[in-house]
Amino acid sequence: MDLKKKINVLVDTVYYYWELIVEPTVMVIVSDMKKLYKRLILLRTEPTRPKYERYGFCGLFRRRVDLVDQYEKKLEDLEDNLRLEQSEVSMAGEFLYVNVIAYLFIMFFESKEVRAAFVSFKSRFSAATAFHMQQSNDPTHWVTEQAPEPRDVYWPFFSTTFMERWLSKLMVILTCIVLTVLFLIPVVFVQGLTNLDQLEIWFPFLTSIASVKVISQVITGYLPSLILLLFLKVVPPIMWYLSSIQGHISNSQIERSACDKVLWFTIWNVFFGNVLSGSVLTQISVLLEPKNIPGKLALTVPAQASFFIAYVVTSGWTSVSTELFRIIPFFGSLITKPCKSPDDEFEVPPFPYYRDIPRLLFFGLLGITYFFLAPLILPFLLIYFCLTYIIYRNQFINVYEPKYETAGKHWPLVHNSMIFSLVLMHAIAIGIFTLKKLPEATTFIVPLPILTLLFNEYCRKRFLPNFTAYSAECVVKKDREDHDDDAMAEFFDKMATAYQDPALLPVQFSVNHDSHSAPLLSSPDG
Amino acid sequence: MDLKKKINVLVDTVYYYWELIVEPTVMVIVSDMKKLYKRLILLRTEPTRPKYERYGFCGLFRRRVDLVDQYEKKLEDLEDNLRLEQSEVSMAGEFLYVNVIAYLFIMFFESKEVRAAFVSFKSRFSAATAFHMQQSNDPTHWVTEQAPEPRDVYWPFFSTTFMERWLSKLMVILTCIVLTVLFLIPVVFVQGLTNLDQLEIWFPFLTSIASVKVISQVITGYLPSLILLLFLKVVPPIMWYLSSIQGHISNSQIERSACDKVLWFTIWNVFFGNVLSGSVLTQISVLLEPKNIPGKLALTVPAQASFFIAYVVTSGWTSVSTELFRIIPFFGSLITKPCKSPDDEFEVPPFPYYRDIPRLLFFGLLGITYFFLAPLILPFLLIYFCLTYIIYRNQFINVYEPKYETAGKHWPLVHNSMIFSLVLMHAIAIGIFTLKKLPEATTFIVPLPILTLLFNEYCRKRFLPNFTAYSAECVVKKDREDHDDDAMAEFFDKMATAYQDPALLPVQFSVNHDSHSAPLLSSPDG
Repeated sequence: MDLKKKINVLVDTVYYYWELIVEPTVMVIVSDMKKLYKRLILLRTEPTRPKYERYGFCGLFRRRVDLVDQYEKKLEDLEDNLRLEQSEVSMAGEFLYVNVIAYLFIMFFESKEVRAAFVSFKSRFSAATAFHMQQSNDPTHWVTEQAPEPRDVYWPFFSTTFMERWLSKLMVILTCIVLTVLFLIPVVFVQGLTNLDQLEIWFPFLTSIASVKVISQVITGYLPSLILLLFLKVVPPIMWYLSSIQGHISNSQIERSACDKVLWFTIWNVFFGNVLSGSVLTQISVLLEPKNIPGKLALTVPAQASFFIAYVVTSGWTSVSTELFRIIPFFGSLITKPCKSPDDEFEVPPFPYYRDIPRLLFFGLLGITYFFLAPLILPFLLIYFCLTYIIYRNQFINVYEPKYETAGKHWPLVHNSMIFSLVLMHAIAIGIFTLKKLPEATTFIVPLPILTLLFNEYCRKRFLPNFTAYSAECVVKKDREDHDDDAMAEFFDKMATAYQDPALLPVQFSVNHDSHSAPLLSSPDG
Repeated sequence: MDLKKKINVLVDTVYYYWELIVEPTVMVIVSDMKKLYKRLILLRTEPTRPKYERYGFCGLFRRRVDLVDQYEKKLEDLEDNLRLEQSEVSMAGEFLYVNVIAYLFIMFFESKEVRAAFVSFKSRFSAATAFHMQQSNDPTHWVTEQAPEPRDVYWPFFSTTFMERWLSKLMVILTCIVLTVLFLIPVVFVQGLTNLDQLEIWFPFLTSIASVKVISQVITGYLPSLILLLFLKVVPPIMWYLSSIQGHISNSQIERSACDKVLWFTIWNVFFGNVLSGSVLTQISVLLEPKNIPGKLALTVPAQASFFIAYVVTSGWTSVSTELFRIIPFFGSLITKPCKSPDDEFEVPPFPYYRDIPRLLFFGLLGITYFFLAPLILPFLLIYFCLTYIIYRNQFINVYEPKYETAGKHWPLVHNSMIFSLVLMHAIAIGIFTLKKLPEATTFIVPLPILTLLFNEYCRKRFLPNFTAYSAECVVKKDREDHDDDAMAEFFDKMATAYQDPALLPVQFSVNHDSHSAPLLSSPDG
């Protein structure tokens, strides 16, 4: 394996960023190496696995070669090789470590050996240049992305190609749609529970119990939304898992994507699932006739007002209270405590955005769509939001520790959800005014969704670009400030070893501990 | 008016491109100046207009101030001022004219005086950097665009703000939709003509004429599509006009946008207008129920096969033949010939893409949607495409002269139109197989539109970015080639004076011809 040649290819492909780049091969993943590490780890963790290779017909003849030894030997060679190449490259180019480094994640799909790398630039401006431009003539060939924070990197998809990511994204979207649509079956069953009469037809033995007033009130008021709540508890982790196999390279991207999925899942299943109760096919067929949507909603939405008021109490109030007491983590720690040694450090949990942001937004949607149909929902929502403010303020200060900076990137989702709620509210209003035969009121409402969508379009042009990347103005200003900063040398020292693929971290297999326990990346001053 | 201060503001805002830019103020448009020029031209062209200002109550007192003289004085002052500032700026920065210039159009919305400018860069790579990055924190504040060719610039919208452009774009889109929908009325009338029986009811005197076989054949076969053709002749110029007030700064953008409008206009009015004949409202209501579209199309599309075969002959064959003879321009030149002086140079016409590309694409759509319903259309289309190939080949070589390079940018429209045709064809096929009760055939066709749309999505990712901008790879390669080219000095000489707003061209009003007839821009070596 001519690694030197591969690295030269890599260096050659970045030739036009040569002057801008601090170090060309900050992190090189050699796929062969990774495979070997994986095999080694497998061999270690599974002591029952045969450690000897079998050769010949049906493995009849067993050759006495210790696989662990063999792999370790191979790995040592590879690692030594890599280190050698790296030092040569570092010495060949005389790079000045002048200015700030803005990390940039560049994926090289050119060679099979070096598929992805972190590249650091002398200034934020040059990193932004590389980020914004299309690199190769084939836009899928060499893709640049902004590097996440070191603690935020999600390694499994670090070196996948564009096509692999695109296909896995398509598959995940398909799975999500199927899950969202099929999840309706338990929701519809729960919806049936709210009508006690229907329940008594299905389960005749309930008639005697249901005649007790308190029990019938509990069944119609709280039980349905409690069961729904338990079902919904499982959704955020599932969506997080789906987002994690979608090809994102940072936890923050995964969390944002999961947030998105959970929100639309909740809106579809809790709102539309309850409003347009019926079989999955009838619900979809309603959406396939856009002309009839307002009329259909006007008929069914007001009927569900009492259910959603109960939902605010059961789902909203209880979730906030359990958030304060953190019952599940508390019992979890009680159970695991005896198993842990007293030296284990307590890990501060990160805030689960993908669980709580969609819930908040969904209550916002309920408030906006129901405020003119059932104003009684408003005091309940007000209490919910006040409780949320007080409790989450405490949790943010005393309980959670952020795992990464969100940089306000959850805001576009909040904006989109608000715009959707407003347009939905307008559609319901149009439906209701048509139903009540008030043509003037309908005419006055028709411009509202159009204006809302225009405002949305304006916001997309005016504010959305700032969520994807920083402007040149701001980046250059920061660069200038850092130019005179003395703490930069320290920053550069840290930078070289900041990003480390766990698969490439030195494992305790090598004989010579001194040379191999050092990180794969040489620090710039070393 | 402190122009110097304004120019300094301008220079300050581009400070981070300072090293990359060849000359900071290549073209400065002073709005005051432009207004004065306009007034002067008005005064000259309209001799009846009062050339004296009126002051006092209802203009009773007339002050003997010659407006032409006054304006000319003001303009001279302004122009001298501008020239002075420009020379100062040019001397202040010591710019090296090292490398190639890639033009870039940067719009400055910062100051009211200097709203837009052409900025040239030392290399294509630096120009691409500035083009791709978001400049200011407010993305609508300072917008960069790639500069069109000098001969391609459309000046009226050169210095409009982002908001003005956005609003005019919205207005134009609205107008287009209204025009497209209301245009159906004559089309529906023409559609009525194809049924001779209906015609005889409306105009009873036609009964005797229509009994002659030849005349009835002409009326049912050719007349309807000929009338439609005459109506459609007016559409491309209207769409071109609408695109021109949409805020584009180059003729090529206007033409592409007009192409788009004409294509969707043709598809809606000729295809859907004939297929879903009926009132405008019934047609729109069909589209508002997406579930019923295939069924409705399956019922109506096959019925119109004979009309579209006739349409290929009347619209397609005749348009190609008239293209060869160019009858209208011929008569036009015959009429205008006596009025022109023999010194006038004959102007070679540019190719009207916005008229011919949509027609070609529409025949493509007809071919794709009708090939399995009425294969008889195929030989007619084949003859049309062969004729088109032969005749346009001749026209491109001998008649037209391109006004600008299209750079293949019409291709995405062709691609989109093909994808739309394919999906439409699948929808019709699904409708027909459902109508004929062939559930297996329907099931086999359902994946086709999904796969087509996925292919479209892939193409958007893989090929579309290359239509918006060149990649870094390609730009840097070109830069290197030009680095060793000796013809660059000449190129720089030409560059400084290439872009000239016609409103800023020296008019013959000044006293001192030597200093004022020189272009406003000093050439870099001057």
